[in-house]
Order: sequence, then C-alpha cells, then structure tokens
Amino acid sequence: MQIAILLYERLTALDAVGPYEVLGRLPGADVRFVAAEPGPKRTDQGSLALIADNSLTDVPEPDVLVVPGGPGEGAARTDERVLDWVRAAHATSQWTTSVCTGSLILAAAGVLDGVCATSHWLALDELERLGAEPVSERVVVDGKIVTAAGVSSGIDMALTLASMIEGELFAQGIQLGIEYDPQPPFSAGSPETAPPVVVEFLRSQSRFLLQG
Amino acid sequence: MQIAILLYERLTALDAVGPYEVLGRLPGADVRFVAAEPGPKRTDQGSLALIADNSLTDVPEPDVLVVPGGPGEGAARTDERVLDWVRAAHATSQWTTSVCTGSLILAAAGVLDGVCATSHWLALDELERLGAEPVSERVVVDGKIVTAAGVSSGIDMALTLASMIEGELFAQGIQLGIEYDPQPPFSAGSPETAPPVVVEFLRSQSRFLLQG
Repeated sequence: MQIAILLYERLTALDAVGPYEVLGRLPGADVRFVAAEPGPKRTDQGSLALIADNSLTDVPEPDVLVVPGGPGEGAARTDERVLDWVRAAHATSQWTTSVCTGSLILAAAGVLDGVCATSHWLALDELERLGAEPVSERVVVDGKIVTAAGVSSGIDMALTLASMIEGELFAQGIQLGIEYDPQPPFSAGSPETAPPVVVEFLRSQSRFLLQG
Repeated sequence: MQIAILLYERLTALDAVGPYEVLGRLPGADVRFVAAEPGPKRTDQGSLALIADNSLTDVPEPDVLVVPGGPGEGAARTDERVLDWVRAAHATSQWTTSVCTGSLILAAAGVLDGVCATSHWLALDELERLGAEPVSERVVVDGKIVTAAGVSSGIDMALTLASMIEGELFAQGIQLGIEYDPQPPFSAGSPETAPPVVVEFLRSQSRFLLQG
C-alpha cells in the first residue's frame, strides 16, 4: 500500500510525523515523502528539516494521501503543482487525508466541496470559506476523506485509518507499539477545556500560528 | 534557552518530533538538532530522514538535552562520541531528558545510576540492567532528569517540562496550539489496558521493535 505524505516549506513537523509513525507500521506500507521540489523542507520552527525523497510526479497514484498543515500551507495552496497533484491523487486514492490546516490545501484543490471535514480549531472559518462543511471534531470521516483537527490529532486520525485498513486488533498493536496512552498534564488541548485566558491568547496569535 | 535534540541513524521519528513540537514553542527556545556526524539521519522505518544541522561538538553545553529512542539506540549507546557528549552535556544542563529507549543511552552514559527513570514498556528490564531504577510511569521526574515512556509519551514529557520551565499557563498555551486533546480510538496504549493478545504479539516482536 503506497502512502504519500506531502511536505512543503514551513509545514508543522508533528502533522506529518504523527501519521507517519502510525501508518508506516501497517503491513506492506510503502511510505513516500513527496514535495513539488524534492529535498529538505524546513519545518515551521526553522530548526528541523524533513527530507522529501520524491517529487510529486514520482508518486502520482498513492493509495493513501496525507496532507499535513502548518504556516506554509498558505503558499502550498497557491502552488498549482500541489493542487494538481492533490486532485489527481484523490481521483484514484483509497483514502485522502489531512491533518490540521492541511485540510485547507485539500479544500483549495476542490476536494472538500460540500464534504464534512475538520481542521485546526482556529482554521474552521477558513475551511468553511473554502467550501467544506466544518465539523468541530478530532477526526472526521466522510466517505474516503478523513480529516483531523490540529497538529497532534494526526495520531488519532491515523489510528482510526489504520483500523479501517487493517482492523482493530492491528491498530491496537500499533497503538501499543508507540505506547500511545496519552496523559497530558493539563486539560488545555481544546478551546472548550482550556482556560479562557489561554484561548484568547491563542486567538490573538492566530495569524502567526497558522500562516506566520 | 538552548535545546539540543540528539539524532542518529534508525531513531524513531516521533520520539524526537513530539518534544520538538512542544519545546520549540517556548519563548527564546533555540533548538539544535545534533548528531555525531551532522546531516540526514534516516528514521527507523526508512522512508523519512531528519536533518541534524549540528555536530555534537557544536553544542557542548545545551540547557536542555533531549535523547530520543528507536532501534538505532543500540548503536548509539556504543558510540563513545555520543556517550562522552551526553556525560558532558548533562554535567552543565538544566534538564536532561529522554523519550522511549533514549533512556538506555542516558543509562549507558552512566547518567541514570540509581536514578528513577522510565523507558518503552518493553525496555524497562534493560533499563534496570543498565543501572537505573525503572518506574512504569509515563513521565518520571528525578531531580533534573526527566524520562518518558514509549514514543508518543515525549509529548506529555515535553508539556510537563514546559510547565516547569515557563509555568502552567504557557504550557497550556502550547497544548492548545498543538490541539493536544488526545482521543485515541482504542484503549490499547499500555500493556495494562491493551487486549492480552496484542500485548503478547508486541512482546514476541520486541527485538524487532526495539533494536531491529
């Protein structure tokens, strides 16, 4: 099963690496990191680069397509090479997925028109503007399109996808392998549970956080 | 605050990227990915490389030291350059941390002698053999040494560390920024909660999972 994970400049590292860590453990997984221009892609914080070994044209028909988000998505979703690839890959994919603001790239490619989908909680309005039906849930499955909320939710999305591809028992094996028994020290991971002052601070920084 | 994250061949990507995503968002964070030989390091599954921009000697005295795990830790903990760097960096660090089998590297460097620490659940016996006092908890703080359990636990470890460095409110802001409101589809993330057949399968694969 060929799994293409899109990279681009200023993506958020965990958006790509969470699903990679899970989906790459599926039997027969053939993961390809792809980019419009192959080579190192510097992640949003600047101090880490992930390498895309493949160009988009190397992997035209992946079985699974994973589109991560990050401040660089604004540039990615105006890159016609990226949009063309997303459209063509989606036409033949078994699963088309995104994490965080990666859903804005899917939407810009026209893939989410009228589709129930999610994104980072700060990006749901933009997702709607781009034609999707925004849903405030951590993982949203609409047909073969599976979208995840912000950054870390790609792990939950990928485990959900792994169970749909290979069954619950195998997905549970992956979960135990990566010891995903989350115990965050605070309950601040969603705007519904975080202290209001924290939510307001993030809202005030949203332009920086999402498109820098 | 200088934060050094060790890379080496066949590390587990999420072990390094989870803490990076959290700690890199601290105010004044200066994250440096370091390796005995700078350059691309291929992660355990083979399809992704992370780039270490710096050699170990470029970053001799980081404030925070993060040592990830992965099947390549066996080679890393017999590399005297790595062990010497860990010892020297630990001597002046504010915090010395590890994720998953990264604690075996700390232990091999002599940093965990008699220290309460954790590791991937399959590696706790080896951790004890190397001189640490193994603890089956997700995040273990013993003085300035903070160790995390398997792979995904580096996110929880880093949020705990972020709160100790910058206070709870800031750590909560990071948590909300990365929307870390985990909702795994199964309760299989620990050997205590996973179905016994899944636990046994992972045990039978432990040599492959830990040291390949």
